[in-house]
Amino acid sequence: MKIYDLIIIGTGPAGYTASIYASRYKLDHLLIGKVIGGLASEAHKVCNFPSEESISGIDLMMKFRKNAASLGVKEVNDEVIGIIQKDKIFEIKTRTKKTFKSKTILLAIGTHRRKLNLPNEEKYIGKGVSYCATCDGPLYKDKIAAVVGGSDAANTSSLYLAQIAKKVIQIYRKDKLRGDPTWADQVVKSKKIEVLYNSEIKDLVGNGKLEAVVLQDGKKIEIDGLFIEIGSIPNNVFLKKLGIKCDKNDYIFVDEAQRTNIEGIWAAGDITTASNGFRQIITACSEGAIAANSIFSYVLDNR
Amino acid sequence: MKIYDLIIIGTGPAGYTASIYASRYKLDHLLIGKVIGGLASEAHKVCNFPSEESISGIDLMMKFRKNAASLGVKEVNDEVIGIIQKDKIFEIKTRTKKTFKSKTILLAIGTHRRKLNLPNEEKYIGKGVSYCATCDGPLYKDKIAAVVGGSDAANTSSLYLAQIAKKVIQIYRKDKLRGDPTWADQVVKSKKIEVLYNSEIKDLVGNGKLEAVVLQDGKKIEIDGLFIEIGSIPNNVFLKKLGIKCDKNDYIFVDEAQRTNIEGIWAAGDITTASNGFRQIITACSEGAIAANSIFSYVLDNR
Repeated sequence: MKIYDLIIIGTGPAGYTASIYASRYKLDHLLIGKVIGGLASEAHKVCNFPSEESISGIDLMMKFRKNAASLGVKEVNDEVIGIIQKDKIFEIKTRTKKTFKSKTILLAIGTHRRKLNLPNEEKYIGKGVSYCATCDGPLYKDKIAAVVGGSDAANTSSLYLAQIAKKVIQIYRKDKLRGDPTWADQVVKSKKIEVLYNSEIKDLVGNGKLEAVVLQDGKKIEIDGLFIEIGSIPNNVFLKKLGIKCDKNDYIFVDEAQRTNIEGIWAAGDITTASNGFRQIITACSEGAIAANSIFSYVLDNR
Repeated sequence: MKIYDLIIIGTGPAGYTASIYASRYKLDHLLIGKVIGGLASEAHKVCNFPSEESISGIDLMMKFRKNAASLGVKEVNDEVIGIIQKDKIFEIKTRTKKTFKSKTILLAIGTHRRKLNLPNEEKYIGKGVSYCATCDGPLYKDKIAAVVGGSDAANTSSLYLAQIAKKVIQIYRKDKLRGDPTWADQVVKSKKIEVLYNSEIKDLVGNGKLEAVVLQDGKKIEIDGLFIEIGSIPNNVFLKKLGIKCDKNDYIFVDEAQRTNIEGIWAAGDITTASNGFRQIITACSEGAIAANSIFSYVLDNR
């Protein structure tokens, strides 16, 4: 079986950027990812990527993907479910029972949306409950949409939904919105958005599909859809067995070269502790580039 | 006199990205720079910025600049020649005798390429003379490329070019390559790379574009391109008086939030020791974003 120089796991900003650099370094590598563009592809509007005035996350990610592909990388859209280390070679198993071998690995596996963990939350997914305003927002034209959260993701979701829905109700457990003040100000000033501060959802109510939320004070609010935008958690299910060191929130510790504690494994993007914990598309890209550069040196040293 | 929240010094990738983030954070800030786009504007082809398949450095920088301007920042094209600290306020003096005051400063002042300082070196820039193998290497497919230097930057440039060019001639003034021995070994063993030791270039020859170099012993060598990889020099003339801590090569030490040793002063981009010393457009952008995020917290805390 072929042994790659590098396998990049994750097809978000870090993964694609690392691949672009790896291609330029002529590293024989493979890109494996479950979600094209990763979490970035869900952002309905990106206004802080320096070369783009305003672009949807998916459009930006398709540019990355196209550039990576133009340099010749093979992209496998599959889910990695396990990594085994044998001597100095890593064996990667995917959901569709494929196996790949590589000298090095870059974990650019990102994060996934945090859930409210309400008893019937799962039941209403796709039936009123969503974790992606960009994806599901258009379903709520002239309807009432609620958003949970008070950070950038929640604020931008409310602003986006306000352009579609009849009304947006933003439910936040604290007394003041946080994140980027430009977004927060726009939410507060919007005539279509009502913010319920110091509020938490206790229950979801409906008959087949979501019809209302019940707050902790017992108040019932009728809505058509609920967008849960309360942050992200690392995608690290298959990491534990490898013994990769993470912080208390499961983000992977990396050094200045994006190396993990295991020789031959690097990590980049939202999954890491790097970039001062500031998880942005641009910081993920930078981490991917730094990792690819470090992997290039390592592969040369071990040829 | 008005006191800004932040003055960003430097109008390259780090400066513009920091400004975009600072504008979104509603920081009242000013951007001062001598060279629009900084060193990045010199790259005649950028192929590793993830959202662009291929773009000139100046075109990419004009996109950054346009986005920064669209968010309202005022850009002053002038040279900072001095910074004085009075209590918690910084006073910035420019070449045209203007003075500005700010609570915080971001030094995004970059580096400049070390040149051979040959009489006609400037004339051939972009016409055969390059300071960046990663940027311009692909232009020399099946051609003859020369590299000047003997350290890691020169050795990796030769190894990289050997994968593209028909032949690489590395010209070094000493009798043994230095830097990482693995790379040096690979250069020496490569059948495509010829190293000319104890050699220095005396003259560049061509008709419109570079065609040959003349060594100090009078020997003329025909080449298609010359990569001058003898390092970069930080643009830090006005830093010494401030007491900013730098490494032995004059790069500014920063912590994980891009803070320097002086409270109220951050640094980002090529001038710093961050990003594992990998000085790229994408890493500079990331450092600018991280700095702006950290400055935002600091300004809020000190309001």
